[in-house]
Amino acid sequence: MPIPVESFFLAPGGQGSLQHRLRQMVTEGILSGRFRPGDRMPSTRALAAHLGVARITVTLAYADLVASDYLLARGRSGTFVSAAAPDARRAQPLPQDGPRADWPRLLHPRAQGLPRPDRPRDWSVYRYPFIYGQADPELFDHQNWRACALQALGRREFHRLSADCYDEDDPMLVEYILRHILPRRGIAAVPSEVLITLGAQNGLWLAAQVLLGPGERAVMENPGYPGTRAVLATTGAEVVSVDVDDLGLPPDRLPARPKLVVTTASHHCPTNATLPLERRLALLAAAEAGDFLILEDDYEFEMSFLHSAAPSLKSLDAGGRVVHVGSFSKSLFPGLRLGYLVAPAPFVAAVRALRATVLRHPPGQLSRTLALFLSLGHYDALVARMKAAYRLRREVMTEAILRHGLQSAGQGGFGGSSFWMRAPEQIDTEELALRLRADGVLIEPGRVFFDPTRARRNYYRLAYSSIGPGAIPEGIARIAQALA
Amino acid sequence: MPIPVESFFLAPGGQGSLQHRLRQMVTEGILSGRFRPGDRMPSTRALAAHLGVARITVTLAYADLVASDYLLARGRSGTFVSAAAPDARRAQPLPQDGPRADWPRLLHPRAQGLPRPDRPRDWSVYRYPFIYGQADPELFDHQNWRACALQALGRREFHRLSADCYDEDDPMLVEYILRHILPRRGIAAVPSEVLITLGAQNGLWLAAQVLLGPGERAVMENPGYPGTRAVLATTGAEVVSVDVDDLGLPPDRLPARPKLVVTTASHHCPTNATLPLERRLALLAAAEAGDFLILEDDYEFEMSFLHSAAPSLKSLDAGGRVVHVGSFSKSLFPGLRLGYLVAPAPFVAAVRALRATVLRHPPGQLSRTLALFLSLGHYDALVARMKAAYRLRREVMTEAILRHGLQSAGQGGFGGSSFWMRAPEQIDTEELALRLRADGVLIEPGRVFFDPTRARRNYYRLAYSSIGPGAIPEGIARIAQALA
Repeated sequence: MPIPVESFFLAPGGQGSLQHRLRQMVTEGILSGRFRPGDRMPSTRALAAHLGVARITVTLAYADLVASDYLLARGRSGTFVSAAAPDARRAQPLPQDGPRADWPRLLHPRAQGLPRPDRPRDWSVYRYPFIYGQADPELFDHQNWRACALQALGRREFHRLSADCYDEDDPMLVEYILRHILPRRGIAAVPSEVLITLGAQNGLWLAAQVLLGPGERAVMENPGYPGTRAVLATTGAEVVSVDVDDLGLPPDRLPARPKLVVTTASHHCPTNATLPLERRLALLAAAEAGDFLILEDDYEFEMSFLHSAAPSLKSLDAGGRVVHVGSFSKSLFPGLRLGYLVAPAPFVAAVRALRATVLRHPPGQLSRTLALFLSLGHYDALVARMKAAYRLRREVMTEAILRHGLQSAGQGGFGGSSFWMRAPEQIDTEELALRLRADGVLIEPGRVFFDPTRARRNYYRLAYSSIGPGAIPEGIARIAQALA
Repeated sequence: MPIPVESFFLAPGGQGSLQHRLRQMVTEGILSGRFRPGDRMPSTRALAAHLGVARITVTLAYADLVASDYLLARGRSGTFVSAAAPDARRAQPLPQDGPRADWPRLLHPRAQGLPRPDRPRDWSVYRYPFIYGQADPELFDHQNWRACALQALGRREFHRLSADCYDEDDPMLVEYILRHILPRRGIAAVPSEVLITLGAQNGLWLAAQVLLGPGERAVMENPGYPGTRAVLATTGAEVVSVDVDDLGLPPDRLPARPKLVVTTASHHCPTNATLPLERRLALLAAAEAGDFLILEDDYEFEMSFLHSAAPSLKSLDAGGRVVHVGSFSKSLFPGLRLGYLVAPAPFVAAVRALRATVLRHPPGQLSRTLALFLSLGHYDALVARMKAAYRLRREVMTEAILRHGLQSAGQGGFGGSSFWMRAPEQIDTEELALRLRADGVLIEPGRVFFDPTRARRNYYRLAYSSIGPGAIPEGIARIAQALA
C-alpha cells in the first residue's frame, strides 16, 4: 500500500537536524506498525514539497534509512519499507514524554462499573457450543438476504437511504413492522407509536433513560436478563429484583410504588416460563391501580413452536402503560443490530429525541434491506424453518437430558431456544464451564442472571440455537460426565 | 399479502358470540389499516384450528363479512379483503377504553427539552439546496460501494459479520483506520485506543457521558455545533460558551477550571476557521496546567483542499489529554452512521463498556463494507474527487458572493464545504429562509449555532456540498434579491 504523503508532519519544536527528524518520522512509523514491509514511501519530490524542505534533505534521509535496512530502494519503482525492518506486529502505544493525564480519576463515576460481557468470542470453533444468541449459519437464508441488500443498494433507492434522516426511520420498514410483525403479537399501532432501535438492548436502554431516575423504583425479574440489570443501573433508580416461579413473574409479589416493571412475559429469560393470561391481566390491573409502567421485553417471540404464541402484554394494554420492545437478533442475526419499540406516541416522541442526540437514526441501508426481506416473505419462510429446526433440536435435547439424568429447571411450554438447568447444590457452574471448555463444550454459567446480593452458583443455561442436532447428544454426555 | 393466522386472537373476556367476535376482529383489522384490500385471509380451517373454535363458526363469520363488503370470496383462490371495504388509509390509534396513562407526567425530566432537528427533509426537491451535511449523489462512488457491500455479504465472511460481537469492533476496520485514516492526521495509535462509533454525533455523546456530570464545567465554542450543545446538556454539567474570533477558539479566554473543552479545531463549525498552531499548543499547555481534557471534533478534515490539512490536536497530544472524534458522514454519506474515536486506552475501555450497554456494537455488515472500501483505495479516490469538485464549487460561490455584494463572515483557509454569512443587522435569517424556500432556495439560519442567551439572528450558513456549480450563481442571486 502506498503511504500517503499526508502521513508525515514535522512536529513543531522538534530536536535535531531536519534530516534527523525525517529519519525519526519514518522509523517511528515502522516501529509503531503504521508502515508495514512492502508499503511504498512517497517520492522524495512529493515529500519535500509537502513538508516544505529541500528535496536533497529527503533524499539523504532515505539513503540513510536504506543503509540501516528500514527502507529498500527498487530503482524506478520507488522506495519501500523493507522486509528486513524491525517487526512491529506487537505494537505498543508509543512512550510519550511529559506527565500523563490521570484517566481513572478523570472518568465520571457513571462510566465506572459498567459490565464487560465475559463470553467466549471464538465460540464457533468449539464442537459443542450450547451458547445463546448467536446465529446459526446453517439456518440463515443468506442468499435472499444478499439479494435484498443488493436491491437496497440499487442506484435509485440508494440516494434516499444514504441521507441524513435527522430523527426519522425508514418509513417502509415501519410500515412492514406495523403490518407484518405486530399483528402476530395482537398489536395494532400507527407509525407515531413505533421507533426502530439498534437492537433490543438499545430499546431497553432508551426506554429506561426516559422513564427512570434517582429516587424512583424499578422492578426486574430474578433471575433475569443481565443486560436489563446493566441498563437499569445507568438510570440511578433503585432496582428491586422479584423472584420468579415456574409461571414467571408473580404480580402479587411486586414491591410498593414501582415506577417501572420490566418483564420477559413471553419467554422468561432465562427460565423460559410463559406468563399465564391471569398473571398478565393482574399485572396490567396493578399497573393501572399503582400508576406504574411496564416494559415488555419480547426478545424471541417468534420462537413459539409448540403452541401459538400468547398475545403480548401490549395487546391487552387498554390504558397505554406498556412499552413493547422487540428484536430481529434472534430471528435474523444479532450483528444486524435492529429492533423496534412500540408504545404510546408521547413516549415514542421522547425516545426519538433521545435517540437523535445519541446516534441520530439507524443506518438507512440496513433498515431498507430488512424492510425488503420482510416484504418479500423471506422472513416468514426463515422463521418457519427455524421453528422446525428448533423443535427437532429441543426433542434431541430433552431426550439426552433425560438419558443422562441432568436436571432441567425450566424449558418453557411454548418453545424458545434454551433450557435453564440446575446442577447439584455444591457445583459452581463457572468452574464447570471452564472445565467443559477444555473439552470442547460451551455452557453459560447462571450466576450473571441473578441479583448479585443473592446469586446462585449451581445454575446454567444450555441453548440449542447454535448447535446442530447431531452434536447435541455427545455434548450433553460430556456435561453429565463432568458433573459426575 | 397473505394475513398470517397468528394475527388473530380471541381477546379474553370479550363480549358476544364467538361468531360476532370473529367478525369484530376482522373489521377492526381492516378499519385500523392492518389488513388492506387484496390481502388474503387465512383459510377457515387454519383460523379455526388456531383459535380452537369450530370451523363452521369461522365459515359463517366470513360469509357475513362477504355480505357486508369487508371480504371478497374468490372460490378456490380463497377469501380476500375487499377493495370495497372502508378505507383506512388515514388510520388513527384505536380509541381504547378506560383511563389512559398520563405520559407527560410519567416521563423523566431528562427526556424533556431534547431538541428536535428542524430541517427540511425534502431538501433534494429544491433547485438551490445550500444545505449542509447531505451527500451529493453526483459525487458518491456508488458502484464501488455496492461492490464492497457485495463482497462483505459473501458467504464466508458473512458468518462472522452477522455474529453478536458483544463489545468489539470489526478488527479489519480498526486496522484500516489506524493505518490509513489516522496517519493523515499525524496520529499514531494502537487498536485499544480506537472505538468505532455510530457517527460523530455518537462519538461526542459517548465521550461526554464518561467525562462530565453535574458540578463540572464544559466549554464549547460560540457560535458552535448545535449537536454538541445538545450532548453537553444531557450530562448535567455547566456549559460555558466562549466566543470565537477569526482564528477560532482563543485559549486565553477559557473560563476557570473547565473539565472538558470541545473544539472543532480543524474547521471551526460554523465559521470554518482553522485554529493556528500557536493556539493549538497554547490550548494543550492550558489543558496540562489546568488538568482538563480536550474533545477534538474533527468532523470534516478530509475536505482540506486549499492547503495540506494541519496536524490534528491529537497528534500534538504528549500528555494524553485529547479525545479525537472523526466521521465518515461527510466523506462518504451520513446515512452510513459510522465514525470513530481515538483516545488513551483507559478512556476507550470506558466508552466501549458504555456503548455495549447502549447498543452493543456497530452493525458488522456496514463495518466490513467500509473496511473493504478503505482498503481497496476507493475512499482515497472518492475524497480526491470530492476535493476537486468542492474546490470548483467554492470558486463559483466566491465569485457569486462577491458579484452580489453578500457578506461572508467565515469561509476558512483550508476548504470545508460551506460559507458562514452575515446579513444586515436588521434581517432575521429564519424569516429569510422561509421566504427563500418558497423561491426554491434552502439556506440554514444561524441562530441555532449560538448560545441561546446571546443568539444572533442575522447570520446564516451556505453549504456547497449538495448543490452543483451550475445552480450556485442563480441561487446566490436569489438570496441577494431576497435581502435587497
